[in-house]
This record gives sequence, structure tokens and C-alpha cells, in this order.
Amino acid sequence: MIRAMLESFFSPHAVAVVGVSREEGKVGHYIFDNLLAAGFAGAVYPVNPRATEVHGHVCYPDVSVLPGPVDLAIIVVPAPAVAPVVEACGLAGIRAVIVISAGFKETGPAGAALERDVLATAARHSIRILGPNCLGIISTSSHLNASFAPSMPEQGTIAFMSQSGALGTAVLDWAAGEGIGLSRFVSLGNKADVSEVDLVRAWADDPDTAVVAAYLEAVSDGAAFVEAATALSAHKPVIALKAGGSDAGARAVSSHTGSLAGSEQAYDAAFHKAGVIRARSVLELFDYAVGFSRQPLPEGPGLVILTNAGGPAILATDACERSGVGLASLEPETITALREALPPASAFYNPVDVLGDAPPERYEAAAEILAKDPNVRAILVILTPQAMTLAAETAQAVVRVSHASGLPVFASFMGRAAIAEAIPILREGRVPQFDFPERAVATLGAMLQYRRQLDAPRTSPPVIEADTGVVRDAIAHAQAAGRTFITEQSAARIAAAYGIVVPAGGIAPDLDAARSLASEVGYPVVLKIASPDILHKSDIGGIKVGIEDEAELDAAYDDIITRVRARMPEAKIWGVTVQRMLDPGREVIIGVNRDPQFGPLLMFGLGGIYVEIMKDVTFRLCPVTAEEARTMLSEIRGFGLLRGARGQHPADLDAVIDTIVRVSALVTDFPEITELDINPLIVADKGAGAIAADIRIGIGG
Amino acid sequence: MIRAMLESFFSPHAVAVVGVSREEGKVGHYIFDNLLAAGFAGAVYPVNPRATEVHGHVCYPDVSVLPGPVDLAIIVVPAPAVAPVVEACGLAGIRAVIVISAGFKETGPAGAALERDVLATAARHSIRILGPNCLGIISTSSHLNASFAPSMPEQGTIAFMSQSGALGTAVLDWAAGEGIGLSRFVSLGNKADVSEVDLVRAWADDPDTAVVAAYLEAVSDGAAFVEAATALSAHKPVIALKAGGSDAGARAVSSHTGSLAGSEQAYDAAFHKAGVIRARSVLELFDYAVGFSRQPLPEGPGLVILTNAGGPAILATDACERSGVGLASLEPETITALREALPPASAFYNPVDVLGDAPPERYEAAAEILAKDPNVRAILVILTPQAMTLAAETAQAVVRVSHASGLPVFASFMGRAAIAEAIPILREGRVPQFDFPERAVATLGAMLQYRRQLDAPRTSPPVIEADTGVVRDAIAHAQAAGRTFITEQSAARIAAAYGIVVPAGGIAPDLDAARSLASEVGYPVVLKIASPDILHKSDIGGIKVGIEDEAELDAAYDDIITRVRARMPEAKIWGVTVQRMLDPGREVIIGVNRDPQFGPLLMFGLGGIYVEIMKDVTFRLCPVTAEEARTMLSEIRGFGLLRGARGQHPADLDAVIDTIVRVSALVTDFPEITELDINPLIVADKGAGAIAADIRIGIGG
Repeated sequence: MIRAMLESFFSPHAVAVVGVSREEGKVGHYIFDNLLAAGFAGAVYPVNPRATEVHGHVCYPDVSVLPGPVDLAIIVVPAPAVAPVVEACGLAGIRAVIVISAGFKETGPAGAALERDVLATAARHSIRILGPNCLGIISTSSHLNASFAPSMPEQGTIAFMSQSGALGTAVLDWAAGEGIGLSRFVSLGNKADVSEVDLVRAWADDPDTAVVAAYLEAVSDGAAFVEAATALSAHKPVIALKAGGSDAGARAVSSHTGSLAGSEQAYDAAFHKAGVIRARSVLELFDYAVGFSRQPLPEGPGLVILTNAGGPAILATDACERSGVGLASLEPETITALREALPPASAFYNPVDVLGDAPPERYEAAAEILAKDPNVRAILVILTPQAMTLAAETAQAVVRVSHASGLPVFASFMGRAAIAEAIPILREGRVPQFDFPERAVATLGAMLQYRRQLDAPRTSPPVIEADTGVVRDAIAHAQAAGRTFITEQSAARIAAAYGIVVPAGGIAPDLDAARSLASEVGYPVVLKIASPDILHKSDIGGIKVGIEDEAELDAAYDDIITRVRARMPEAKIWGVTVQRMLDPGREVIIGVNRDPQFGPLLMFGLGGIYVEIMKDVTFRLCPVTAEEARTMLSEIRGFGLLRGARGQHPADLDAVIDTIVRVSALVTDFPEITELDINPLIVADKGAGAIAADIRIGIGG
Repeated sequence: MIRAMLESFFSPHAVAVVGVSREEGKVGHYIFDNLLAAGFAGAVYPVNPRATEVHGHVCYPDVSVLPGPVDLAIIVVPAPAVAPVVEACGLAGIRAVIVISAGFKETGPAGAALERDVLATAARHSIRILGPNCLGIISTSSHLNASFAPSMPEQGTIAFMSQSGALGTAVLDWAAGEGIGLSRFVSLGNKADVSEVDLVRAWADDPDTAVVAAYLEAVSDGAAFVEAATALSAHKPVIALKAGGSDAGARAVSSHTGSLAGSEQAYDAAFHKAGVIRARSVLELFDYAVGFSRQPLPEGPGLVILTNAGGPAILATDACERSGVGLASLEPETITALREALPPASAFYNPVDVLGDAPPERYEAAAEILAKDPNVRAILVILTPQAMTLAAETAQAVVRVSHASGLPVFASFMGRAAIAEAIPILREGRVPQFDFPERAVATLGAMLQYRRQLDAPRTSPPVIEADTGVVRDAIAHAQAAGRTFITEQSAARIAAAYGIVVPAGGIAPDLDAARSLASEVGYPVVLKIASPDILHKSDIGGIKVGIEDEAELDAAYDDIITRVRARMPEAKIWGVTVQRMLDPGREVIIGVNRDPQFGPLLMFGLGGIYVEIMKDVTFRLCPVTAEEARTMLSEIRGFGLLRGARGQHPADLDAVIDTIVRVSALVTDFPEITELDINPLIVADKGAGAIAADIRIGIGG
């Protein structure tokens, strides 16, 4: 349905340009020129009440008098005139409109009001609006250039959306020079209506598009984006360059998790969940897109490097280590065959060096042998121009091997003039060519990442049996009391309702009750002040640990009450919490912070200084599956501590995973929970469980 | 003197090519062609006994019959014939020889023997040899192309050496296409004689060279390289691309430091000490070299980004964060002036956005205002090709600003065809141009690194008063006993001799002695087995800690001796070590491992799991200055633990620095020490010192 909605943008039958201009240098002039120049097969109607003819085309005073049906209008009139034109489009039955004009939300409140008018008008007529303040659209399969970009890309299978129009222009010009073909180009502009989510949905079913590349500055609807991108990435690679650094420093935060969970972490987690591959530069974005669009996916790790020089092969090997791309171990039969086919001074192990005087035949013979090795899943051919080198003929050999082997093949022919003739041959043969081998390796790395994603089982978060009534009551109670956090005892009940293990104990309103609770849970115990007004108990002497018997309990009770009354005389005191003192174990933190865009963001790390100083943490969006939780554990640098390094027993990883999944279910079920920190979760040895020693829960209004 | 030695390579008066060939496709043909084509002003004599004429030049049968004096010979004859030619060169008074021919050390033992012959012959005549197995030399100021590289670079101020000939060829071809000028190019080949060290020394005084760029796979003489590069980098930037990954996994190691100190760490430390800027790719190597060679050094941090589009400016800002390049805060007067000069919709804060329709005049006006701001130390001009953009004229404006302001100015004109006319203008105007802004930012980052190096005071390691006799005796004693480690007690004496604080105590041969030692140092004490045969004491129950009184001492003594006798009946037992039990403190590790290339490599990190699991460590080559030691402390991720995070008092950083400097002095004075680990050094709060609780010292034969 979405696809049907956007169909008119990419494959219209007839197009009207409203605000076309006869004056050179005007956007309304460029757009019309571009439309004509690209060879669009359908009718193109210029609309301008002050002209009767443009470039030999009859010019119409408005869209109501066009001689035939039109399904796409491009509007280039000044901002205040846009809403009336959209109204006219609606009356004329046009349901897709590109608003190129600027002067809307990006200019301030008055512009924002104009934008709202345009949207309201469009909504009345079920019109979809792209823009305003955008560069337009290109659809190469329809020969449609409905943009004022200076160059039309070649036809290809990469769909590219850009949240920056100017960056889009620059990239289109650059891509044309590089011979990179596109299926679609969309400049998103202000995203008043059509957003990246609509495009992600539309391109999932677009037969002309095999790869989606996006330059994004922000996502409009985080949940919708993740859902749409997850669906798309299941059968087409999606690569995004997200600009704009972390804003963590700028926000007020009140939890450990909050202080580490910035929007960068949220975007990383969202891309991870949605299977979106993140590029770190425009060059990477297109290197990856070109790799995906021109070569088959590797079946798995196992790159072989075929070269006529040692130095660049070492650089490629270094890059493999950095990008996590594994080199293939060659089978003995492969080595034997290479020895027979190559001069004795060659290097027969990976990297395979066919020597500086290698003719194309030698490259081809070696590549054919390598392609048969079951451990070889991708080939990188490096060529340096030496005295005897025939770059063009070698390129032809590489293309032949690429087609015959079915393996992903990449080229790094190094130099400029000396390899110039090889470039169009490689391009024509669809072998991605990189001026330096590191780029080829990084591209293969991205393709391997996508391969792993496709191979990973897609599981759902487990269903957690929970007593949600307990949670609902506790939240309602705190809200009624005007508090933004849940009291400690109540937080423990909430956790327990979701099957998270908490220490035995309870609130004792007086010393007698404390004594009987202590003997019930068993010594040693911990005593903490119980007050709805005190969040940071230890700061005011409100906690005593390691209480061994009743005498110590009496003294501790007295001491806590005295101190708290002295330091916070206004605080309401409910008594003390009595808890069984926990056995020591490895301490981890599980925290949740609600990202304004993507919702609950779950953090895992080792507790204490590992979080605060080493910042050794990892994030996922909720809901978190057990598989994701297991991966989180292995992602932190200090994983060895949990797995059991230095002769220690392994910790109970399954209990940590279980707790993560339960926390995730809790915060997913209750959007009122804005923050949650279990710090520490004390993890015993394998099989012995994990217990949430301290839980803080913050709630929204 | 070195310069005088290599002068004949770069500025010869007359050149002989021995082994010149009339046959196309032969190296001896290429070389002679290249020499003639480059326009070398001096005489060029072809030598070949089987020809009388080549390209209209008289061909001579050997170097003894040349008609005039020659100071550089290029040898292209087969490997076995090289030594006799070198002999003839010696007799003819030629003192500089380039051996292009391959077939030497790189082919195996027979070739290595030929190489030794060549060297011995050269030594007899005081001839310097470049190569063998190299591509040759280019010296643009002399119009000398004594190489078989296919393209001669433009004249410039970058001197480039390459340990890979093929990579050199590729880079020369690529650089010619990019318009990058070189002063020198040297292919190092097998480095039988002339090495990177000679070139680093020669280029320090080379008036044609302003920047040195190197592709290296290994350094021949680590100490000489560090010394020469330190001298060079004090007045010219040196940038190196070091290929070849870590070999740590491949080596047998017996210490914590050894397991982490691979050759990668040693190269990093060596480059750091020598002030060599490390590039991670060929592209980075030349981006940095071009930046240094075309623009003045920035006075300090403070980049302003001037753009006609938001998106690329955000990417540049992201890159600034990654590269540690600080953005300038503009003065209020600057903002005011910008408001007056620019349209109201412009962005007046850094990045300064002059809007998509910006004409060259607007760019120039803004840049002139920005250049006057005292906080602005560098300018990056970003241009995206939009409808009204005049790229060439804007390039001219950027060049004018670059010349007038005296500030380092960089351009990132994005696109291809639309900005093509701007490229030669920027190149001519010496403004480095990058297709994407991230590369410009990384280049400025390298220039800022060099600026900081120049600004940092060059200090020497302090002189440590030490009782070297103690150390000499202890080492001699261990060597005489055939041990590869120093006993614990002896190691403590060695440390104490260098002023490193060690726990009070000593060896007690029997229980009585242990009792009296314990009462002397004061309870609580630690007991450890003292044996020359036992290195890992705790593994066999040879350590007891926290002994509070004589009764516990008696029991512990008995227990240790019994266990050790049972587990290692063969071990020689000297008694027990009695040490005062140390107060707890923050634990760090200081270790030294001797790198085969660069000598003692000192590691610092937090102890225990921080080293073993988090690998949170940093390295420097010895000798380490106090300033370097201070920087090491701040480089580890866990520095906050020492500085005093979470309300803790700061640790005694000065005591750690002092210990590092003393360890460095010890291992520098005694090359016999192959490994040293102080693990842990227990660091008390500020002012209260640090004490080496456990010291292990390994020695070579």
C-alpha cells in the first residue's frame, strides 16, 4: 500500500511543474530543464500563470486546466503560495507532490505555520508531500529527474536518500564521476510528510533497488524506522551514514545509565536491532553500496589476497585485522596447484604473490586455482603498475574470474595513469575497484557483517510471566504521591513480579519488627533507612552492612535513625529495610534509559568503576532477546572476568541473560518507567544465580 | 658528512648506467630512457660491452673507459655480475652506486652470499650502495630520474622513501595524477647499506625537502632510527606508514609485559619518542604530507568551518570530535561582523553557513572576518555545488584568503564535474583540497599533533643516583648460577639500589631468624618461600599473608616448608622471606620488555585484571622522562582511579612517575635485564608514596 502510495513519485505517468521559470539560474528553470534532459517518457506540463510557453512547451496557468491526467506535481512557487497550489492539485486529482520551495519550518515559526497549512491541505486530499525545502527526486528507471541536481546518475540498483540536499548534490556529482549507478535519489528536505520510514518501506518492494543507502541527521519516528528497516534489511542491505555527534554531555541525567546513554548509543543500538550497517563517511557509504550492488554476498569468512607486490598485500593484511576479515587458509592441494602454475619465487600462501613481472595469464591461472579452494570465499586482486604490467588485460582476466567463479571479487589496481585503461573494464565487468586495498577490505567487512546478520536466527524476546498488577499498583501509588521514583521496597516488589531475584527482607517500622525480620531472613543482614524522601541513603549514613547478631542490629538501628533525623529532620521515615546480606560475587550493572527517539535503551556492563571510569558498557534497544543479551555479555572488554579468567570459575552467565531479558520485558510493558538501574546485580558462579542487590526505578508523570 | 655521502645520489654531476639495454621492456632500457626523459643536466653514460650505441649515445664497454668523471653509477646487470662492476666503479672513483638488480638476499642463501660480496667490495672502496633489488631514485631538483618508475613526479618539497618498490611505483603514478610534488623518491630495496636511517639523516639538511614521508615494513637499526628521526622531527615533520601487524601472538613470553608488548607497541613507542607521526594508510600518509608541505603549521587548536551547506559541516564536526581537533569559539565582535556581512538566514556560529546560494564574494567576506578572530587558527572551506555555485571563483577567493591571512586553510569542494575547474586553482594556490571534509580534518589533526610536539619542552631523563655495584653483583651472581632470573630478595636489592621503594624485610634461613626479622619489621608480616628454583611461589603454597603474631608465624613457617618440600622435593630452600605486610592501596604495574629492535620498552597500567583482561596499558621506549611518565599515567582509560574518582583521594602520582623513571634508568643502565615486572606497585594516597610489593627480573646470558 505504501509502495502504491509512493509509486507516483518514482514512476509517474505525467508530471506538472508548478512555478516553472523561463529565467536561467532560477530553480524553476533548472527543474524543468532537468526533466526534459533526462528523457522522461510521459507528459511534462509546465505551469506558470505569467507565461504561455517555455522551451517550446505550452505553459498552463494552473493545474486545473492541464490537458491530461497528472499523477505527480513539482512545486517551485514561493512558500506562501504553496498551500493554494496543493489545494488545486488535490482538486485536479494529483496525489503525489514534491515541494521544492524553501521558506518553511527551517526559517522559524512563520515558516512552520505555512508548513502546517500545506500539510493540512494535503491531508484533506490524501496527498503525499515530499519536502518542502528539498532538492527533489531522481528515478533512473523512469528517466525521471525531478530535481535541480546538476547531474543525472547512471542507472543502477542503489537507492540513496539524503537528509541534506546539498550533500545529495555533491554526492550525485561525485558518483557520476565514479560511474556509480543509482536506482533512486531522494532529497528528504524538511520531512513534513514523506520520511525515511516511507522510503524504507517503499524500497523493500522496489524491483529496481537492490541496496539502500541513506545519509541521515535524525530519524523522525524511531520505532517505525526500526520496524521498517528490520523488514527491509531481511532481504536487502541497508547502509546508513548518521551525522551529528553525541549529545550526552548536554542532557541532565540522574542515573549511571543515563549518563552514558546518549543519542549516539541509541542510534547504534537502533541500527543494530534493525540490521542497518553503519558507515562512518560518505566514501564508506558508497564503497559498501557499490560492493553490495556489484558482487554476490560472501558465503562466509575466508579472503584470499592475490598480488604482484608484497607491500600492498601487507597493508591489505593489516586492514583485514582491523576490519575483522579473516584470511583463508589454503588447502594443501591448492598450494600444490599453485606451485605447478607459478614461478618458484612466488609466494604460495595467502597472500599469494605472483611477482612483479606477472602477466595477465599468471594472475588468471592463480585466481582460477584459488577460486576452487573451499576455504576461499572472496578474492582481492591487487595490481601495482610495474615494468611489465598489462593493467587492462589483467582487468579482463579479473572480470572473467569474477563471472566464472561466482565468488565476490574485488580489485585494487593502484596508481593513476598506468592503470587508467583498466578502470572502465573493471567497472563494466562489475568488479568494484579501489585505489587502495584497505577500502576493499572494509567493504568486504561490511558484506560479511550482512552475511552474519542473514545467517543469525531471527528470534523474538521470550514471553515473561509477570504479575503486572503489582507493577501497575506501585507506579500508580508513586504517581499519586507525586514522586518521580519508586521506593526501594516497592522497586524490589516490581522486580520480583517480573521474576528478577531480589534479596529476602522487608520494611520494619520499628526495632521489634526489625529484630523479627532479621531472624526470619537470617543473619548477617543489611539495614537501610526506609523513606520516600531519601534516594541516596548512604550519603547521610542511612545504610549499615554486615550486621551479625541482634546486639549489632540494635546499635545499627539506633544509629541510622539518629543520623537521618539529624541530617534530614523533614524526611518522612517509614522505618528500616532489613535484608539478608548477600554473598559476594561478581558485580554487574543492568540499566535502562528511555531514549526520546527509540524508547527504552538497555545498558549492560561490569559494575562500579568499570562503568564509571572505564565506560566498558554496551547497549541494545528493548525488547532484548536472549541471543542479543548473550552477545551483549561478550561485547564488553571485561567479559573475561565473567567467563572466568585467572583460574576463577565462570559466573552464572545464564542468570545475567535471564535478568536482562526480564528487565527488558518490564520496561517494554510499562512505558511509565523512564529509568531503571540494577546496580549491582551480584552474579554467583555458574548455576548459582544472580541477585539484584539494589534497584532504582524512575517514572514519568 | 652523511649528507655529503648521499649528495652524489641526489645531485650527481655525471651518471653511468651499467647494463643499459637496447631492448624494449628491459629494466636497463627503462632506466636509461627515464634518465634522458627527465632532463638531467649532467652527462649520462650508457655502459654495455655488447653495444656501441644506445639512442644515439655512445655506449662504453665498462666504467674504466668513461670520457669524464662520474659520481653515481646505476647497476642493472644480473646479480652475479654486480660485485665485479662495483669493483670497477671503485677503481674508477665512483662512490655512490644504485643496484637495481634483483637476485640477492630476497632469493635465499646463494643470493645473500652475492649480496655480502657486493657489500665487501663496496666497503673496500668506501662506496655507498643503495639497494640491491630496488626501483632506484628520483631527485626532482636535479631532474634526475634514476629509476624505472613509469612517471616522474612534479617538483615539490616532500621526500618519500618506500621499502616496497612496487608500492613506490603505484604511489608515484597516483601522486602524479593528484599533482603532488616530491623533492626525492627513494626505493630502499634490500637495504644492504643505505637505509632509512641514512635518508633521515641526509634529509634533515636537505634544502629541497620540507616534509619526510616513509613507507616502512621494518627498521634496520632501532636506536639509530630513533636518534636520527628525533633530530629530523625537531625541524621537519616526519610521517610514517608502518606496515605489518603485531607479532605478539607468535612469540614465547613469560611476563605480563611480554605478553602485551609486541612489535606494534614498540613501533608506536619508537615513533612517539622520535616525534614521527604515524599514518594508517597510503592516503593518510600523503594527505598529511600535502598538508604540511602546502600550508603553515597552525599556532594551536581552533578550527573554523565555513560552508554553504549544513550536512557536510556536520560530518566535518563529527570528524573533529574523532580526530581531537577543537573548534574555535568565535568572539562576539566576529559574530557581529558576520551578521552585518551575511544574509540573516546564515549560521553565524561555528560552523559558519553562508547558505546554498553563496557567491564567491560572500565566502571571501566571511573568511576575512573569521581570519581576524584571535581564536581562529585554521579555516576549512566546504563547498557543495548548488544551483548558483561558482566553484572556480570561490576557489580563487579561498586562495586569496589563504595567502592574505597566513593561517592554514583547507578546502573540501565536494563533487566531481561541477567542481573540476576549482581543483587546479586550489592546487596552484597551494590550498590542500579533499573530496570529503573528514580527510581535511584528519590532516589538520596531524598538523596539530606536530605543533604540540614542537611546543612541548624537550627534556632529558633525570640522572638517577644508583648503587650500580649492587646490580652488577646480583646479575653476575645469577649468571654464574646459570639462572635466567634474579631471585626475589636480590631483585628487591637491585630495585632499592635504584631508589625504588621496596618492603622492609629479608631472608630468614630458619624459624628463629624469621621470628627476629618479623619483630624487627613489625607485625603483620608476609612469609614467602625463598628458593632459587621456585619462581611462582603462590602456586605451590609458598606464600602466607596477614601473619599477626609469633604464634601465627610459627604455624605459617611450618606449613610453607612442609608444602614446598612435598611439592618440590628437589628445590633448594634458602629459608623464608619475611616482609612487613603492606597497607592496601591502588595497585599498578610497571613492566619492561626488551624489544629486539628498539630495546627496553616500558609498560604502565593498572594491575591485575586491568592488564590481563582489559589490556588497559601504555608503552614508552626507555629512557623515559618524567614528562613522558606523567603522560603515560593519563593515557590509560582507568586514569580516573588514580586521579581520585568517586570521592577517593588522589593517589600519589608523583611516586608512580618517580618509580617509572627509576625503572627506566635501571634497565637502560643494564642491558642484561631482559624483562622486569613490578606487579603490583602499591600506590598510597597523594604524598604517601608507592612501594614495589613484588619485583621479577629476568636476565639474558
